[in-house]
Amino acid sequence: MSAALFDPTPEKALKGKVIGVGTGPGDPDLLTLKAVRAIENADVVAFFCKRGSKGNGRGIVESFIRPGTLEMPLVYPVTVESDKNGDDYRGAIAAFFDQSARDIAVHLDAGRTVAVLSEGDPLFYGSYMHLHLRLAPNYPAEVVAGITAMSGCWSMTGMPLVQGDDILSVLPGTLDEEKLFQRLSGTDGAVIMKVGRNLPKIRRALERAGKLEGALYVERGTMANGHAIRLVERDELPAPYFSLVLVPGWKDRPAGDAR
Amino acid sequence: MSAALFDPTPEKALKGKVIGVGTGPGDPDLLTLKAVRAIENADVVAFFCKRGSKGNGRGIVESFIRPGTLEMPLVYPVTVESDKNGDDYRGAIAAFFDQSARDIAVHLDAGRTVAVLSEGDPLFYGSYMHLHLRLAPNYPAEVVAGITAMSGCWSMTGMPLVQGDDILSVLPGTLDEEKLFQRLSGTDGAVIMKVGRNLPKIRRALERAGKLEGALYVERGTMANGHAIRLVERDELPAPYFSLVLVPGWKDRPAGDAR
Repeated sequence: MSAALFDPTPEKALKGKVIGVGTGPGDPDLLTLKAVRAIENADVVAFFCKRGSKGNGRGIVESFIRPGTLEMPLVYPVTVESDKNGDDYRGAIAAFFDQSARDIAVHLDAGRTVAVLSEGDPLFYGSYMHLHLRLAPNYPAEVVAGITAMSGCWSMTGMPLVQGDDILSVLPGTLDEEKLFQRLSGTDGAVIMKVGRNLPKIRRALERAGKLEGALYVERGTMANGHAIRLVERDELPAPYFSLVLVPGWKDRPAGDAR
Repeated sequence: MSAALFDPTPEKALKGKVIGVGTGPGDPDLLTLKAVRAIENADVVAFFCKRGSKGNGRGIVESFIRPGTLEMPLVYPVTVESDKNGDDYRGAIAAFFDQSARDIAVHLDAGRTVAVLSEGDPLFYGSYMHLHLRLAPNYPAEVVAGITAMSGCWSMTGMPLVQGDDILSVLPGTLDEEKLFQRLSGTDGAVIMKVGRNLPKIRRALERAGKLEGALYVERGTMANGHAIRLVERDELPAPYFSLVLVPGWKDRPAGDAR
């Protein structure tokens, strides 16, 4: 006589749950109620970080981690990201995610709930999804949506991004200029991520697509020192990692500048 | 002798603030801490609704509205949305937003803080941005980001959407089949909104682009009765308003099905 008889996944019944928790773009006030609860109730809080760093995600949620909670840093094996397409890099990263999943599984097998912090939204360009793919087939898994960095940025600037039947394109600044130009030509609103050293190329592609004039450059959106300026006014120095470019859609919007 | 001398916008100093508050996709637990605080501290809570309805946004935040808070329904002038491109519709809608902005301005002029609820994220296809354009040039204005419906949906399904250098396209199902096909061919991940009666066309465009197999159909994501199925298994009946189609990117993801 067992409840597990009526459980559609009896093999998961006694195991702990893994929860991918979106921590939002940086401001702790942009955590959801569900994220706060998941962190407060977790037996283990796991987070990605670089060697020598405490992890951005952990910094955001710090005040919600209960004393006595087990903390589990998942330290990236490489800090220099120069050749992300090389086989060595891919192999090292895959081995790292495999090992991280095994380490988390030890806690899940012991019945512990593990919250894995994920900056922004877990399934939107987040590292968490590498663990989700490895763990969700065998353990109870849940994803708590988070505010994306792009949403934090356009909210900070107050720039309406897309409306009505607009198309929105999210583009990595790593695309070559021709492809960037094509994608920008065929969209209404756009968000360009991974700006960094790609800024001059992004500017050229936007100019060719006739979309440079309205574009905003946002640095460290939703962080204490975040700011935004028109891209045409930004100099040519390389941009930091936490920066992006917003291109407004909504061409038939009423007159008036709400920025 | 006045502090206003040093205020960059002295004309706004004594006025109340308008706050566009993202209420997320439906689950009250997906409100951010900042949204809850804005609603709790508002003098006036304004929300869009159809005649005879209490408003979806208001329903989500109901338990956070303090007793004594002034509630301000902004009732859409039209319920039949059959000819959105007609001049009559556009005129009526513009007049409605003008009048709503004037009504809110009366409270702002009296120094009251007005929280305007916006389902999902205020500047992402939200009605709030019509008010923001009209009010932000003359009053202090703030936008509180919200979890988008699409983010709520992919989190519910646990489907990793985009990773690494993927392109994501957000497309309205109202596009004609050829344009849908082109945009789907040039993207990695995609979210197709406004599914409704466009479902057969969306299916054809996905099939031509070779992306039908992995697509998920999500109905009422993050609501109590939400569910998701593979699009190929969905019948041809028209879809409800709160439905969308998710197309996964991340083609080189490791083997394993985490759904």
